[in-house]
Amino acid sequence: MKYCSKCGGKVARRVPDHDSRQRWVCEDCGTIHYQNPKIVVGCVPEKDGRILLCKRAINPRRGYWTVPAGFMELGETVAEGAARETREEACAEVELGHLFVSVDVIEAGQVHLFFTAKLLGGFAAGEETEDAALFAKDEIPWPEVAFLSGEFALKKYLEDDGRNNGVHLHRVPHGE
Amino acid sequence: MKYCSKCGGKVARRVPDHDSRQRWVCEDCGTIHYQNPKIVVGCVPEKDGRILLCKRAINPRRGYWTVPAGFMELGETVAEGAARETREEACAEVELGHLFVSVDVIEAGQVHLFFTAKLLGGFAAGEETEDAALFAKDEIPWPEVAFLSGEFALKKYLEDDGRNNGVHLHRVPHGE
Repeated sequence: MKYCSKCGGKVARRVPDHDSRQRWVCEDCGTIHYQNPKIVVGCVPEKDGRILLCKRAINPRRGYWTVPAGFMELGETVAEGAARETREEACAEVELGHLFVSVDVIEAGQVHLFFTAKLLGGFAAGEETEDAALFAKDEIPWPEVAFLSGEFALKKYLEDDGRNNGVHLHRVPHGE
Repeated sequence: MKYCSKCGGKVARRVPDHDSRQRWVCEDCGTIHYQNPKIVVGCVPEKDGRILLCKRAINPRRGYWTVPAGFMELGETVAEGAARETREEACAEVELGHLFVSVDVIEAGQVHLFFTAKLLGGFAAGEETEDAALFAKDEIPWPEVAFLSGEFALKKYLEDDGRNNGVHLHRVPHGE
C-alpha cells in the first residue's frame, strides 16, 4: 500500500491514537486503512458415500484436487458463500449441513470455514476447474489434494462420519 | 474508494475478466481491489456460574453491555483474537473452549465468531470499557445488551448449558 484510496495522498505505517499496532495511515487526510484476515468458505459434498472433488484449472495448485471453496463475498452469509463456490467450481447444488472446520492460514491472512454438505443432482467442471469427480472415501487422492486446509477438512469429515462433533480448529504451519 | 492504493490512479467499478461481480479496478495499473467481509472474534467468559460482560465506553452502543469481542487482526488465529480482545476489553485471561456461534452481519460486511470460555483470575475495565462485571445467568441485562450478535451468543450459550452442540448459525436482519 502506497496511496490513500480515499484522497490519493501518501500513506505511512504509524500507530494511531488509542491503538497498539502499526496501520497504514494517510499523511494527508488521516484515514486509517485497516487490513484484516479474509474468509474462505467451502464444503465437503457427499453423495451415495462418495465425495465430490474439483481438479484445479488455475494456480495456485493447478492440477491438484480440492473441495469446493473460495473467498466469501460481501452481501452473503458464510453458508451462502460455501454453496455459491460449489455452484461456481463444480456446477453443483448442495444442501449444507453443519460448520465443522475452521482453519487459520496465518501466513496468507485467511480463515477457512468448511461445512458438511449433501450433493443434490449432478455436477460438472466450472470455469476454474479442469475436472470434477466423485471419490470413494478410501480412494481420496491424498498426495494430490491441493491445500492443507482442505486436506484437514477431508480428514475430519471422515473421522466425524456424519456426527456433529463441533468445530475442529486447526492452524496451518508457516510456510506450508 | 476513489484511488488505487498501489499506484494512486483513479479506480472505477468494473467486472474484471473471468469474474461475475463489479470490483474497484484501477484505470491506470489494472489492480483489482477486492473487498470482503471482516471477522469479529469474541467469547462468553464464565466464572463460578456467572458471565463476564463489558459496558462499552465508546460508540457504537456506548453504555450498553457486550461480551468481549472485536476485529480479528492479521498474524493471529481466531482463538488468539478472541483471547486478545478479552484481554484488551476486560483485562482478563481466559481459557477458551469451543467455537459455538457464527453470526452473519451482512449489512456491516462482518462475520462474528464466538467461543465458550472460562475466566481465569480477575478482570477490570479496559481502555474501551466503562465497566466490567459478572452477571448471574438469570440476571443478564438483556435490554441493555449492545449487539444482536452478542445477544444471540449469550442465548445459545445458556441453551447449550456447557454442551458442545456444534456451531449455531445466525443472520442478523438488515437494518438491525
